Amino acid sequence: MRTWDGRYSQPVRLDEISTPSRVADAGEGVSQPELGLAARNHGMPLEAMRYDLTPPGLHYLLIHYDIPFVDADAWSLRIDGLVDRPLTIDLAALKAMPATTVRSTMECAGNGRARLEPRPVSQPWLVEAVGTAEWTGVPLRDVLLAAGVRPDAVDVVFTGADHGVERGVEQDYQRKLTLAEALDPEVLLAYEMNGAPLAPQHGFPLRLLVPGWYGMTNVKWLRRVEVLDHEFTGFQQKAYVVRQSSDEAGVPITRIAPRALVIPPGFPDFMTRGRVVRPGPVLLEGRAWSGRAPVARVEVSVDGGATWAAATLADDGGHRWAWRRWSHSWLATPGEHLVTARATTTDGEVQPVDAPWNRGGFVNNAAHQIPVTCLED
Amino acid sequence: MRTWDGRYSQPVRLDEISTPSRVADAGEGVSQPELGLAARNHGMPLEAMRYDLTPPGLHYLLIHYDIPFVDADAWSLRIDGLVDRPLTIDLAALKAMPATTVRSTMECAGNGRARLEPRPVSQPWLVEAVGTAEWTGVPLRDVLLAAGVRPDAVDVVFTGADHGVERGVEQDYQRKLTLAEALDPEVLLAYEMNGAPLAPQHGFPLRLLVPGWYGMTNVKWLRRVEVLDHEFTGFQQKAYVVRQSSDEAGVPITRIAPRALVIPPGFPDFMTRGRVVRPGPVLLEGRAWSGRAPVARVEVSVDGGATWAAATLADDGGHRWAWRRWSHSWLATPGEHLVTARATTTDGEVQPVDAPWNRGGFVNNAAHQIPVTCLED
Repeated sequence: MRTWDGRYSQPVRLDEISTPSRVADAGEGVSQPELGLAARNHGMPLEAMRYDLTPPGLHYLLIHYDIPFVDADAWSLRIDGLVDRPLTIDLAALKAMPATTVRSTMECAGNGRARLEPRPVSQPWLVEAVGTAEWTGVPLRDVLLAAGVRPDAVDVVFTGADHGVERGVEQDYQRKLTLAEALDPEVLLAYEMNGAPLAPQHGFPLRLLVPGWYGMTNVKWLRRVEVLDHEFTGFQQKAYVVRQSSDEAGVPITRIAPRALVIPPGFPDFMTRGRVVRPGPVLLEGRAWSGRAPVARVEVSVDGGATWAAATLADDGGHRWAWRRWSHSWLATPGEHLVTARATTTDGEVQPVDAPWNRGGFVNNAAHQIPVTCLED
Repeated sequence: MRTWDGRYSQPVRLDEISTPSRVADAGEGVSQPELGLAARNHGMPLEAMRYDLTPPGLHYLLIHYDIPFVDADAWSLRIDGLVDRPLTIDLAALKAMPATTVRSTMECAGNGRARLEPRPVSQPWLVEAVGTAEWTGVPLRDVLLAAGVRPDAVDVVFTGADHGVERGVEQDYQRKLTLAEALDPEVLLAYEMNGAPLAPQHGFPLRLLVPGWYGMTNVKWLRRVEVLDHEFTGFQQKAYVVRQSSDEAGVPITRIAPRALVIPPGFPDFMTRGRVVRPGPVLLEGRAWSGRAPVARVEVSVDGGATWAAATLADDGGHRWAWRRWSHSWLATPGEHLVTARATTTDGEVQPVDAPWNRGGFVNNAAHQIPVTCLED
């Protein structure tokens, strides 16, 4: 943004105040715009992994523009495009349809971005952009079938009530699924989170919920579902891709890569968040999840990955898309330790110690590392 | 914290891993430890000022250590020290006592810290560390009188269940009030926020609530109230002071300085959070509050403070300690504008355009400034 100089300037264009993406210089600290995002969008304090369901207010949040103020009484959802019977459905009509509940761990595709070197300049997540909730709503499939999707349908586009400008492009937030993905009976039009109406910041009154996919797909403040006979190539489809430079098309981001996180043991230093324990048994525990193949095992290291031990992994309790608890007993001895955990899927995908860099800073599932100091007794 | 080098080091001391406070170098970006705090502790998205009561999850949070996991059934509050009848009260007994509800705006004493130059290195708030809630609980006074405070009492110390290390000092979080302050009938032992049990991050099951005081006084996860016959000089009393260098004792921080904030108008750019409007009438609105003398008026400027106009200020609706809505109609014209607001109290205290610097980065109530771009029609 240009610096205001105390007088009216010449008229400006959107691309002057909304500049291209960039990568931080070597050693460049977090900038004021990144801090502005971090002060709004918050992660989940890692100790909240004690809870199967993340308590309200602790689930991570990433809001591209502003939280819209939606009047539920005036709100309705439009389903149109390549359908036989365009529909306009209000909240009461949606709630009258058969509902489903799914427990799902949601994670931001940018989680881990601020640990990449060089750092892509955007929302500067470290590792904490995650949360788990039970979402209740109507299968999208039921609504699409009621509208009568035509045979030549290709993509389904979801439009939220949130509006802003991003890299010079003014837009309503929009994402797509292919028709096949949209017809998955697990995909919901969700109006409740943990048994309560959605909070404003989680998409009140209605959001898309696509279990196992990164957060950006789960369009909040949903107001329109449009069926297209061609591929949708809107801004957010082009933005959420893995690529090395901004002139590549890149690989679209879809399902959540496997990750294990550790509940930081002992107690913290206020400023560094470094951890302190005393000698003796310390229960290391945390959660692991994957939107790809299920997690098969979690391993723990207290020496920064030189040696690994198998953690005890709880079963999923019937919740395929939710994180699973893991634990490992450690006998702490005085000195410094680097506690690390990694998840492996049933497909053999292992969390890397260093994830490959990409231009947008996405899908960085590098193994979580926590420095722990064990004091003398 | 020392860098882990892959092997056990010599035993370490707390003051090696928990270092003294510091001030950032000129031009130094936000560091990883500051970012670690920003990712946990979150501000209130400013558009949430639309609501009289901040929706759950949007109220600001500052947690020094970890959120303790408290089992309400096993929890009790101890009232002891210089009292005739030391008490141990469980939650049921507290809830059986007559309750009071107060609507109160709470703000972090460090709000605005990251806008100071040079920047004190700590939780890097910009302007958003605020929120308003209705708190329900038992007047502390009733509990103190039930315990029988002795005539030579001086200070009352509040201890939370949160434990950590800060600047080399291992501690439970503790703050004090003088006896006179503690006997104010508006000071509550609060067990509900907006009619629901406290969320874990807001102090479940019980917190202190001191209307009009900065957040650090409102001890969360309260487990002990101790009456002393001398002044309490614990770590947090010495930390939350206004001073120019760390060898000064400084002036203790108590009540919230007056502040007005603006709901950012129009729509944002994702990355810079700069605002965009189109020509025509734009309703500028926001909130103003003070823990000192009440807010008497709010003024608005769209030219960075060169000229000011009086905003319409709503009355307090009987809620002396809650923020008040203000509004002002602006006819936006193409170009760049700097929208600013400032509050003045009935005592004549005016928000400064530049607040004086201090070593801890506290009480920076400099007037809120929002760059706004008005496009051509």
